[in-house]
Amino acid sequence: MGLELYLDLISQPCRAVYIFAKKNGIPFQLHTVELFKGQHHTDAFVKINPLKKVPALKDGDFTLAESVAILLYLSRKYKAPDHWYPEDLQARARVDEYLSWQHTTLRSCCTRAMWQKVRWLTLAPEMLAATLGELDRCLQMLEDKFLRDQAFLTGPHISVADLLAITEMMHSVSAGCKIFESRPKLAAWRQRVEAAVGEDLFREAHAVVLKAKDLPPVVDPALKEQLKLSLQCLLY
Amino acid sequence: MGLELYLDLISQPCRAVYIFAKKNGIPFQLHTVELFKGQHHTDAFVKINPLKKVPALKDGDFTLAESVAILLYLSRKYKAPDHWYPEDLQARARVDEYLSWQHTTLRSCCTRAMWQKVRWLTLAPEMLAATLGELDRCLQMLEDKFLRDQAFLTGPHISVADLLAITEMMHSVSAGCKIFESRPKLAAWRQRVEAAVGEDLFREAHAVVLKAKDLPPVVDPALKEQLKLSLQCLLY
Repeated sequence: MGLELYLDLISQPCRAVYIFAKKNGIPFQLHTVELFKGQHHTDAFVKINPLKKVPALKDGDFTLAESVAILLYLSRKYKAPDHWYPEDLQARARVDEYLSWQHTTLRSCCTRAMWQKVRWLTLAPEMLAATLGELDRCLQMLEDKFLRDQAFLTGPHISVADLLAITEMMHSVSAGCKIFESRPKLAAWRQRVEAAVGEDLFREAHAVVLKAKDLPPVVDPALKEQLKLSLQCLLY
Repeated sequence: MGLELYLDLISQPCRAVYIFAKKNGIPFQLHTVELFKGQHHTDAFVKINPLKKVPALKDGDFTLAESVAILLYLSRKYKAPDHWYPEDLQARARVDEYLSWQHTTLRSCCTRAMWQKVRWLTLAPEMLAATLGELDRCLQMLEDKFLRDQAFLTGPHISVADLLAITEMMHSVSAGCKIFESRPKLAAWRQRVEAAVGEDLFREAHAVVLKAKDLPPVVDPALKEQLKLSLQCLLY
């Protein structure tokens, strides 16, 4: 059995992994794990990833969790073009710096913005304004510290950092946040990322999430609890 | 000018970087940035790290933030022994998986446990029980998913993952959490990490934090705000 990827394209890091694998012609079997049906809590999936999260990877007997680890594993194993995760010491460090920074900043903000704005789960409504303020500061930091006057976040070429960033931001866009309208520099970067990825693939990867706000709210109490637990580290 | 490291050993990732550099005989100039004096907000430091966080690295004209990126940069540049960040595809992926996982789990829990238990900043007291419960689940996950029956978190040898983990846990210990007493497997792992690092270096790196709970509370309102802002992504 070759490479298997366990994804739900409603999840932002799953989209980053999906785009990376497709763009680089990496052959894989796709297993869709529907988060809104609680499929990440099934016994079968927990054997693949005890952390009960997507994305997850299976390559023969080897299983791997965490989107960053999966992206780096794929880039190494399939010898993806250097720009995705450059060999150069300082260029690679720039990518590592972003990959590390995003966990508690952009990733957390965009997840909260989605859940609070779309109101899938009942969270204190006054939190939304705070989250949107935090998202704004986060995007400013992204422009000032990472993008600066470069074409891409970590240098002149697209890297895995850009994939993780754009998929986060599209999460906020899908929730109705107009984050690019007042940020021309970031909007131009988005165009460059879409062009580098390819518009068809970009659209395909985001089709599910861009319709997500029309999904019915989660009503099953057990599933609500599971989802809250899964997102706990990012939501609060 | 050679390698310069900007650290405050009261910070857990600073201790991981300090131990790594010292253990591997990497020559560096130490700049202490005292967080409790707000030195991470000075103009001089913001030029080194616009994210206003320690650790930060300066190597000639190159500056770098984020402990994970710094540890990987040092391991590559100074060709540290392979076990710290193994070349082997799957072994490296295991380390990457931990480095990614810890940001929103152990790192966040241990930081909150320290701040809430020692009460440097006034946070809602009912949060402490929730934090300690989360820390307990986190440690269980660490045992079940990462440590399992291995000598170290990601395999038979010590890696940068163990350094980031032990420095987090010692943060909780310094706040009075008895996390190792009911966890013999984790306690045995701690002994192996201390032995691999060397007891003198381990003690030296943790001297400041182990006295931290005797530090006076932060009273200056501006500094309080700065500290809250710096820790926002981890505290809530």
